[in-house]
Amino acid sequence: MKPFHRILAATAKQQPLQSISRHPSHLLRRHPQFPTNHPRFIHSTKLRSQNGTATAASQASREPSPATSSNPQMAFPCLDALETRTSNLLNKTAIPSRSNSSGPEPSYTSGGYQTFRSPNPLHLDWGGTLPAYSIAYETWGTLNPSKTNAILLHTGLSASSHAHSTSANQSPGWWEKFIGPGPTFALDTDKYFIICTNVIGGCYGSTGPSSPDPASGDPYATKFPILTLEDMVRAQFTLLDHLGIEKLAASVGSSMGGMQSLAAGVLFPERVDKIVSISGCARSHPYSIAMRFVQRQVLMSDPNWSRGHYYNSIPPHVGMKLAREIATVTYRSGPEWENRFSRRRADASQPPALCPDFLIETYLDHAGEKWCLEYDANSLLYISKAMDLFDLSKGVQDAAKDRRDGYEKRRNEVVAGAAGDEAGASCTLTLPEEAYQEQDEDSTSLGSVSEANSSLNARRPPRDLVSGLAPLRNHKILVIGVASDILFPAWQQKEIVDSLREGGNEGVQHVELGEDISLFGHDTFLLDTENVGGQVGNFLR
Amino acid sequence: MKPFHRILAATAKQQPLQSISRHPSHLLRRHPQFPTNHPRFIHSTKLRSQNGTATAASQASREPSPATSSNPQMAFPCLDALETRTSNLLNKTAIPSRSNSSGPEPSYTSGGYQTFRSPNPLHLDWGGTLPAYSIAYETWGTLNPSKTNAILLHTGLSASSHAHSTSANQSPGWWEKFIGPGPTFALDTDKYFIICTNVIGGCYGSTGPSSPDPASGDPYATKFPILTLEDMVRAQFTLLDHLGIEKLAASVGSSMGGMQSLAAGVLFPERVDKIVSISGCARSHPYSIAMRFVQRQVLMSDPNWSRGHYYNSIPPHVGMKLAREIATVTYRSGPEWENRFSRRRADASQPPALCPDFLIETYLDHAGEKWCLEYDANSLLYISKAMDLFDLSKGVQDAAKDRRDGYEKRRNEVVAGAAGDEAGASCTLTLPEEAYQEQDEDSTSLGSVSEANSSLNARRPPRDLVSGLAPLRNHKILVIGVASDILFPAWQQKEIVDSLREGGNEGVQHVELGEDISLFGHDTFLLDTENVGGQVGNFLR
Repeated sequence: MKPFHRILAATAKQQPLQSISRHPSHLLRRHPQFPTNHPRFIHSTKLRSQNGTATAASQASREPSPATSSNPQMAFPCLDALETRTSNLLNKTAIPSRSNSSGPEPSYTSGGYQTFRSPNPLHLDWGGTLPAYSIAYETWGTLNPSKTNAILLHTGLSASSHAHSTSANQSPGWWEKFIGPGPTFALDTDKYFIICTNVIGGCYGSTGPSSPDPASGDPYATKFPILTLEDMVRAQFTLLDHLGIEKLAASVGSSMGGMQSLAAGVLFPERVDKIVSISGCARSHPYSIAMRFVQRQVLMSDPNWSRGHYYNSIPPHVGMKLAREIATVTYRSGPEWENRFSRRRADASQPPALCPDFLIETYLDHAGEKWCLEYDANSLLYISKAMDLFDLSKGVQDAAKDRRDGYEKRRNEVVAGAAGDEAGASCTLTLPEEAYQEQDEDSTSLGSVSEANSSLNARRPPRDLVSGLAPLRNHKILVIGVASDILFPAWQQKEIVDSLREGGNEGVQHVELGEDISLFGHDTFLLDTENVGGQVGNFLR
Repeated sequence: MKPFHRILAATAKQQPLQSISRHPSHLLRRHPQFPTNHPRFIHSTKLRSQNGTATAASQASREPSPATSSNPQMAFPCLDALETRTSNLLNKTAIPSRSNSSGPEPSYTSGGYQTFRSPNPLHLDWGGTLPAYSIAYETWGTLNPSKTNAILLHTGLSASSHAHSTSANQSPGWWEKFIGPGPTFALDTDKYFIICTNVIGGCYGSTGPSSPDPASGDPYATKFPILTLEDMVRAQFTLLDHLGIEKLAASVGSSMGGMQSLAAGVLFPERVDKIVSISGCARSHPYSIAMRFVQRQVLMSDPNWSRGHYYNSIPPHVGMKLAREIATVTYRSGPEWENRFSRRRADASQPPALCPDFLIETYLDHAGEKWCLEYDANSLLYISKAMDLFDLSKGVQDAAKDRRDGYEKRRNEVVAGAAGDEAGASCTLTLPEEAYQEQDEDSTSLGSVSEANSSLNARRPPRDLVSGLAPLRNHKILVIGVASDILFPAWQQKEIVDSLREGGNEGVQHVELGEDISLFGHDTFLLDTENVGGQVGNFLR
C-alpha cells in the first residue's frame, strides 16, 4: 500500500499554500479507498493489521527518498512510539508500568485504602446529583478517645489518598517525608490522627467519572455532573460524620488542597480549628485557568477521548500525555530548569529533531509518559474545571447557595409528584455568536496601558473576597507561598492573607519562600521538608 | 446507527478503572463494523456522509438520556465546531475569514510583496540544502544613492514581510504605528529605507515547507531541512547583496527578530552599524523551549498533520488552533489578564462547561480560531525549532562552522564525482533507551535546593556567550526588555547586556520596562509605541 502523499504526489500538481480553498481536496474523493486505508483516516484501525510496532505511516517516514527530494524525510520516533502504544492497547499487549520511575512527584499508587460508602445522595453546587458515592481514605496515627486530634489532609489535583506508606500499601506516599512520629515531621502521627481522602471526581477509589452510574451501570463518563471543590469538601465532611469526628484539629493542604483547606473552614467554620493553606489561593486567577484550559482542550481533542466515552476502548493516552507535558511546564520554574538542564541536548552528536531533543524536552516527555495511562482523563477534566470554578468571594458563595436552595426545592417537588427534571443543569453553554473582541488597537496605546497598570497598583483585597473569608475571622491560619511558583503565584497567597487581615483576622501567619530559598516553583510543597514542612510543624505544635 | 458507547454498554459489564490491561478491549473486536462506522475510528470520514454540520458523535452528545443516567450528558459545542470545520474543509465549503478580526496582533496579511529569487543554493547550518530559494520582502522609504540608509527589520515567528501598509497592500502591517515619516516614528521613513522580509521557512512568499521541492515538484513538507535563525539571516544578506546594500544603517527586531538582529551583527559585523534587539535573547532558555515544545507536540499529534504531508488534504487546523492557544498564554501576563478578564464568564447565567466558558477561555479560543487556517503548520514547526536551537555562544558558533565546513567538503567531493549523500543529516535523533531520570528525591531536599540557588545567584554572563558576542564589541546596541514578559523574561535581555559589557562593549544601552510601564508581557513590542517605539526612535536619531 502506497502512503497517501505518494499517491497524491503522482496525481496532484504542486500548488503554493495561499488559501485553504485552493487545496485540491477533490483529490481525496477520487480515491474511494482512502477512507478505509489511509493512515489518517484509519487513525486507530490501521494498527490492528500490522505486527504491532510498525505502521504504514512510520514506515514511510523511515524510507530514504534520495531520488525524489532535496533532503531526507524527517523521522518521528516519538510518533512511532505513540502508535505502538495505541496498537499495544488495542491488542492488550502488556504496557510496561512507569509507576516506580523516579521523579519529584511520587507515583500515586492506590490500594489498601478504606472506603466509606454513603447510601445517601450528594447534591452538587451546579445541580448534579450522585445518587450514592464512595470516598477512599487512609489514616495515620491514632484517633484519641475524644476525637479531637484529627487532621484532614487535602490533596493536589491528581493525588490519591496515599499520602504516606501504610502496612496495607507500603509504597511511599506523596507526602511521605512530611508525615511521621515526632515533632520533626510536619504532621506528627504521635500527636495527630491524619486522614487523607481521594476527592470525589477522582479515580483512586472515590466516586468519579469512571465509576458506574447506578442509573445505567455504565461509567458516568461525561454524564458525570459538574463538580466544585466545595462539593468535594462537603463529601469529606460526611466521612468525618461517619468517623464521629465533630471538629478537626486542623485542615491542611497544598495546591488544590490549599484551596480546599480554606473552603473547609469557610463551609464549616465550627468544625475546623487550625487551617494550613500552602501554594493555594482563595480564587483561581485567569492565568491558571488559561493553563488548565489548554490542557483540557488538548485532551478533549484526542479522537480517542470520544467525548468521554472511552472506558471500553482505547483511552486517550496521547491527549493525556500532552496535557501532562503542558502541566509540567507550570510546576517548576525557569531558573530551576536553567540550572538543571540549561540548553543540553539528549544527544548532541545527532542533528536536531522535532521529537524530544533537548533534555528539557525529554524531561517533559517522560513526565507525560509516566502519567498518560495512570490517571483517568475524565477525572482530570472534572477536577481541573472544579479548580477553575473556585472562588470564595461572598457573591459567589451566595449564588451557589441560591442555586442549591432552588435545586432542593425542585427535588422536593419531584418527590411530591410534581413534574420536573431532577438535575436541572444541562451542562452546556451558549456562547455569544460574536467571537471575543479585544479592545481596538487604538486603545492599546499608552492610555490603556497606564489605566491597566494603575488599576493593578491600586489593588486591595476585593471587598467581596474579604466578606467571603469572614467565617475564618477567628481561625488560626498559616498561609505559605513560594516566590518561584508560576501556577499559584505568590500574590495569590498574599491575597488570602490581605483579605483575612482586612476582615479582622489578626492571627494569620504568612510565609513566602523567596527565590533564595526555593526555585522549585509550585512543586516546592512536595520537596521542601525543611522550609514547608518545618513551618507546618511549628504551626501545629 | 447506535453510538458506540451505547452498543458497548449493552454488552459490557462495567469495571472500575484500575489498570489499562483490564479494559475489555476485546469487545472492540466483537463488532466488525466498528472500524468503518464508529465516530472514533472514522474520525474524518464520518463527516462526508452528513449534512456538513451534525455528526454522529455530536448528535449523540445532544441526546437527552434521562432514563439511563443520573445526570444529563455534557454538550461539547466547541468540538461540534471543529468537526464542522473539518467537514467544510473536506467539502470545500467557504470558511469565513477571520483576517480582519480585531486583536492586538494584526493579521499577517500577505500580498503585494516583492520577491528575490536566488538561483544559487542555500546551504544550511545542519547540512540541509535549498537548491534555490525565494525571499518575499517589502520596503518603505527611499534608499539613498550611497545605499547607506537601509534598516533591516526582522519579524517575530509568524509575521509576514508586511510590517506597514503599502500601496500594493493597504492592510495595516504588524508594526504599522512604529513606521512612518518623521521623528515621531520609531523607524523614520523620511530618513531610512526599511526592508522587511518573510523569513526562510515561512509561508508568506519566502521558501518554506509549503514550497515545492525542485527535486520532486511536491511541497517539501517534512523533507524540508532543519533551519537555524542564522540560516535565515544569511539568506537575508543575499537579498541585501541583490539590492546592492553593503552595510546596514541598523538591524532591528523584536522577539525572534530580536534574536536575528543580534545574529546579523555577529555573522556580519562589518555589514551592520547599529543594532536594536527588543524582547529577544542571545540564547533560548529551557522554559521557552518547553513552551514551544509542547506546542509542537500538540500540533504533531493532530492526525491531520500526517507527519507534515497534509498539503493536498485537510490541514491540521485543530492542532494549529491548540498550539496557538498555548502560545497565546505566553504572550501576555497574568496581571494583565487579571485586570482585563478577571474571573468573568462568557455567560454567567449558564452552568459551567468544559468548552470555552470563562472570558479568558473565549479569548484563547478566539486567538486559536483566528490563526488555525492562516498559517502553515510546518512553517510553525521549523521556525519554532529554529528558535530553540538559537545560541550565540562561541562554542555553538564554532561547532556550526565546523559542520558547515564538513558539509561543504562533502559537497565538493560529490561535485567531483565521489560517492556521498549530499544532505548528510538524517534529521532524526536516537534517544537513550532509558527515559529521563530525575535526580533521586533524597537529593532534592535542602542540600540541592541551596546548591541550585547558589549557582543561580552566582550567575555571571557565561564566558562562552561573552566570546560569542565579541564581534559586537564596537557596535552601538539598544537592548529592550519588559519585566512582565514570561516568554523572553527580562533576565534574558540583561544576559545580552551583561555579556556585551563583559566583552568590552561600553556603549550598549539597556532599557527594561517595569510592570508600572507595561503589563502587556511579550506583546508589549507590538503595542507600546511610546516606550518601545520612543526608545527605538531616539536610538536611531
